[in-house]
Amino acid sequence: MAEPWATSPSGQSLGIDLHIEPTGSGLRRGLTDALREAVRGGRLAPGTRLPASRTLAADLGIARNTVADAYADLVAEGWLTARQGSGTRVAERPVEAPRPAPAPGPRAPGGLLHDLHPGTPDLASFPRAEWLKAARRALTAAPNDALGYGDPRGRLELRTALAGYLSRARGVHAHPDRIVICAGFVHGLMLLGDVLRGRGVRDVAVETYGLDGHWNVLTRAGLRTHPLPIDELGTCTAELDTWGTSAASHGGGPAGAAAGSGVASGLGVKAEPGGEAEPGGEADGAGAVVGGGRGVQTLGGSAAVGAALLTPAHQFPMGVPLHPDRRAAVVDWARRTAGLILEDDYDGEFRYDRQPVGALQGLDPERVVYLGTASKSLAPGLRLGWMVLPAGLADEVIEAKGSTDWSCGVLDQLTLAEFLNSGAYDRHLRSARLRYRRRRDQLVAALSEHAPSVHATGIAAGLHAVLQLPPGTEQSVVRAAAWQRLGVAGLSSLRHENAAASPAPPDALVVGYGTPPDHAWAGALDALCRVLP
Amino acid sequence: MAEPWATSPSGQSLGIDLHIEPTGSGLRRGLTDALREAVRGGRLAPGTRLPASRTLAADLGIARNTVADAYADLVAEGWLTARQGSGTRVAERPVEAPRPAPAPGPRAPGGLLHDLHPGTPDLASFPRAEWLKAARRALTAAPNDALGYGDPRGRLELRTALAGYLSRARGVHAHPDRIVICAGFVHGLMLLGDVLRGRGVRDVAVETYGLDGHWNVLTRAGLRTHPLPIDELGTCTAELDTWGTSAASHGGGPAGAAAGSGVASGLGVKAEPGGEAEPGGEADGAGAVVGGGRGVQTLGGSAAVGAALLTPAHQFPMGVPLHPDRRAAVVDWARRTAGLILEDDYDGEFRYDRQPVGALQGLDPERVVYLGTASKSLAPGLRLGWMVLPAGLADEVIEAKGSTDWSCGVLDQLTLAEFLNSGAYDRHLRSARLRYRRRRDQLVAALSEHAPSVHATGIAAGLHAVLQLPPGTEQSVVRAAAWQRLGVAGLSSLRHENAAASPAPPDALVVGYGTPPDHAWAGALDALCRVLP
Repeated sequence: MAEPWATSPSGQSLGIDLHIEPTGSGLRRGLTDALREAVRGGRLAPGTRLPASRTLAADLGIARNTVADAYADLVAEGWLTARQGSGTRVAERPVEAPRPAPAPGPRAPGGLLHDLHPGTPDLASFPRAEWLKAARRALTAAPNDALGYGDPRGRLELRTALAGYLSRARGVHAHPDRIVICAGFVHGLMLLGDVLRGRGVRDVAVETYGLDGHWNVLTRAGLRTHPLPIDELGTCTAELDTWGTSAASHGGGPAGAAAGSGVASGLGVKAEPGGEAEPGGEADGAGAVVGGGRGVQTLGGSAAVGAALLTPAHQFPMGVPLHPDRRAAVVDWARRTAGLILEDDYDGEFRYDRQPVGALQGLDPERVVYLGTASKSLAPGLRLGWMVLPAGLADEVIEAKGSTDWSCGVLDQLTLAEFLNSGAYDRHLRSARLRYRRRRDQLVAALSEHAPSVHATGIAAGLHAVLQLPPGTEQSVVRAAAWQRLGVAGLSSLRHENAAASPAPPDALVVGYGTPPDHAWAGALDALCRVLP
Repeated sequence: MAEPWATSPSGQSLGIDLHIEPTGSGLRRGLTDALREAVRGGRLAPGTRLPASRTLAADLGIARNTVADAYADLVAEGWLTARQGSGTRVAERPVEAPRPAPAPGPRAPGGLLHDLHPGTPDLASFPRAEWLKAARRALTAAPNDALGYGDPRGRLELRTALAGYLSRARGVHAHPDRIVICAGFVHGLMLLGDVLRGRGVRDVAVETYGLDGHWNVLTRAGLRTHPLPIDELGTCTAELDTWGTSAASHGGGPAGAAAGSGVASGLGVKAEPGGEAEPGGEADGAGAVVGGGRGVQTLGGSAAVGAALLTPAHQFPMGVPLHPDRRAAVVDWARRTAGLILEDDYDGEFRYDRQPVGALQGLDPERVVYLGTASKSLAPGLRLGWMVLPAGLADEVIEAKGSTDWSCGVLDQLTLAEFLNSGAYDRHLRSARLRYRRRRDQLVAALSEHAPSVHATGIAAGLHAVLQLPPGTEQSVVRAAAWQRLGVAGLSSLRHENAAASPAPPDALVVGYGTPPDHAWAGALDALCRVLP
């Protein structure tokens, strides 16, 4: 009988597991054949180190010499190599197993020379050393049971740290019990979409401009998305009331009722342009209402919009914050209709000219789900986001998440908690704010010098700017950028497919000035100026 | 106008973000009111440190003295405390904000004194120091773009390392392009369930004993699960053919066809007891076929079983490996019917008396999906699993995963790759094998001394044993264990609800001897012996 597999030497460096089943008769021959077949068939890739002959012999319960002889045979045949100090390895062959791609050089990914796509922070500024320090402290201090299957809400340490931080820095009403950690914003949105659909909601209002990846998550959950127009006061929330109370009164939908006014009565929304302009030039070139408004036709007769997905602090991508009157109005809509607001606070921490706008959630924690993420403030690769849920929704979301058993890795959760509690998160944000603000100022200065016909809007906050182009020029500028291998997004690529055709959508570029690493920023800015009219 | 928020000192320790909106007229009064309200309303929890007056003044664009005066007012009112070296903090109050739960003491979770539930490894043996070293090397070496939104398959570094390891140690035919990293086994199963359902599969064969959490994942994907019986040669795979070819021939299903034989022709399965018994006493007391076999009635007339979820290396929980003839037969079934086998290799690395059984996937990589996990070999809290997919399935699974944007955190992925490549994973497994084997031997010895009527089966591998009890005693033993606050699972709790009533299910306990930390193991074993008949 074979010696126990587990009793092979465990401390030595060549205590490597190798699964091999000697074939046929004769131990040496059988082992040699099995090893050759494993190499020939590609199961053992070139360069793979084999166990020491003593280890493999113990695992297989055979004499060490038998293994040594089999190794020697295969070295002689050229399948293996044996070198002093390097052990026995599978020989390299002309046809090699795939290798990892080479580490990227100074070029941006995807064949781009410069990447100014919005949506990603400067990954080179991720605080690696600080993060590792926090990870060491967190893992050293963690109780053993933190490493087990955990609470579907996520680790209490992180939820407690986030409750404190979000209350203090974002004005969120947060309690650890109402916070659910998720693997980024999209994961949270998917859970919410499933819960809303389960409650019978069919329709979700979104913003005319945004990420179709988010809208698609809602569509896959069985929900229809309807774009709200955006003007210089932010998203036109009055449309919500039009839909909820008199959807049938618009333009001959299938349920086509009589006249009706569609008046957003009782909201007190100032829908006319003007009002308090945002600092930083937002008023320039953004005077018109853009998109939206036609989704009413697809809503049918009596369906009420049950939820609204908004970016109140800094509309993505337009960059305008939701006007205080509209903030109040949308909360009022949610209260009157038992609707739910999903607040996507993706970059709320980054505001440059005054304090960040507080979270909408603070106005009514029972009608607003607050969604935040570490993807912009730290790095998307962490896959960490969080939701602060109303009491009436928490149990359903927790159940939906728990039944699927995804949590995020606890080590990153504990590390982020330590990062927050030690103040490292605040320090990182402050230094990032200074860096991004400098880039924004350089962008504005470069535009005024090299492309005076282009106005930058939405620049009081965030990691991107909207460059308003002369009418009819967006496509040619996007093509010129592609030709120069400069990555930027045309505004039309971020437009909801059901957005109203009238008024005509503005021509614009969305420029992610946070994306490049510091050393590549100046070159990216030069490249941008070269393709602008 | 306010000074820029971003220009506050970033290097000093009190550069903390605080969201506050002074109210009313008079700066000092307005700030004092807003701060008091934030404390009174609970937004700022007791103990929260406030920014230095200089920092907050810069953020708000007001004079430092104004902030200092507001702080002083609130200290005088008792809302804040100011102590040398500790800065200004929110005062403690009788009603405190919730705190993290105290770190668990020597007691097991859930009010248990001893936890022998199966399914969790000894979390105290997680190699924290080695993991942190690997994390440091991995994060130091990672390119910046590793921190961005990544490949939905997961990081190439980890997929490459896993391809090498799984080929070498588990006999899997693995290529990095066919590997998808997921957040544990259940996440992978959910993706597969969605893809199968999308292909029109309605029915999945499972094993009569297993985890209902897994079956529920398939049910939620719209699939029906049908239990296969288990005997001492493992899961009775011949049932698959009965279903696929003549489901209507059994017991008057709705499509109720004529006689039919239900013979598993051409499978060559030796269904009779006997054959090669597993070492370690598996043959004792497990001679009968247990459960399953009645699922045919729910299948309806012509539906073919499209997939089978199996634990071939070490059936969970029965512990028997799938007999070589049945391994061949189930692959043959999949080829003939274009079926798919989902191989749950949850603890394949842990085998004590000979080499681990190689993965079934090696027999036909185009018909078997291999699913592995770090939950048993390292810790569930990592939430890391992996699938090796057939070529014909890879794109669909990758698309399903990509469209939902969950990946696992890249830092843990990179760390595990480093852990594998450095040999630390093999070393950890070998030392864990020795430790668990010692526990298993102690369990067997204790049983033979204190409970000679109880036979342990399924103990050649894994982290749990099945203790076969005298007929009719399972419920009373489980109750006695609960009374002693000893966590164990009755075998009946792991039985599929559609399992056949005949033959009568055996009475047994499933004991996870891997679960307790080393210091608690002896006590748990004593407690177990006390409740056994």
